[in-house]
Amino acid sequence: MERVPILKIGDILLVSIQVDMSDQTAVQLQEDLAERIVATGCHGVIIDITALDIVDSFVGRMLSTIASISKVLDAETVVVGMRPAVAITLVELGLSLNGIRTALNVERGMELIAAHTDEREFAFDDEPDTETTASS
Amino acid sequence: MERVPILKIGDILLVSIQVDMSDQTAVQLQEDLAERIVATGCHGVIIDITALDIVDSFVGRMLSTIASISKVLDAETVVVGMRPAVAITLVELGLSLNGIRTALNVERGMELIAAHTDEREFAFDDEPDTETTASS
Repeated sequence: MERVPILKIGDILLVSIQVDMSDQTAVQLQEDLAERIVATGCHGVIIDITALDIVDSFVGRMLSTIASISKVLDAETVVVGMRPAVAITLVELGLSLNGIRTALNVERGMELIAAHTDEREFAFDDEPDTETTASS
Repeated sequence: MERVPILKIGDILLVSIQVDMSDQTAVQLQEDLAERIVATGCHGVIIDITALDIVDSFVGRMLSTIASISKVLDAETVVVGMRPAVAITLVELGLSLNGIRTALNVERGMELIAAHTDEREFAFDDEPDTETTASS
């Protein structure tokens, strides 16, 4: 069974998806990622899909699940490197990546996560009740 | 044909090898990487091999070639994420990764490249002739 590696860079976990995801690989990735988020205390997950020619409903759902799990574990998920053709197909298929933030490349994804972390810290400092509103 | 994605993070290009390398994929990666180094002016290349169970002579040679190409283009190559079993096999097979620096993980690889860049800049500032000695 293939296992997708998870790289830690500063406060961020980086996953580059290159292989076709089977059910088992997807579940394994979700488990590994959840464990790594808890072990490292990272606040951001970047998933790079540059290598993917197609994002079908299975992969779309997997990305949504990862984003949801990360959110519960207090980490923000950003999907980066989506090809133009993939974006077009997603829209044509009517798949909306619910709860997933996207960015053009890894660097912009990192900026997005950094901005979100700052924003949240600011919200906590200022008034804890506004946190949910600020991140929605 | 599979294409290995190259991610740019700051002054570093990150390549995560997850698929079995064919001749064609290896050549393609070398070309892509050379182009990206020139296009971005990056001074470091990090190759992550966490996903590899085996590094045979073919992959070893590919890594050496990438390191040599990068060197000519003024970029340092660091291989990270080697599994203990892979290291043992490499030594048993008598394969020495010539001209390749290694580090335990991406973060340490980044530190190594940063240190090397500083060192080189210092050498340039101080006395240009010592540069070759300092980096060898």
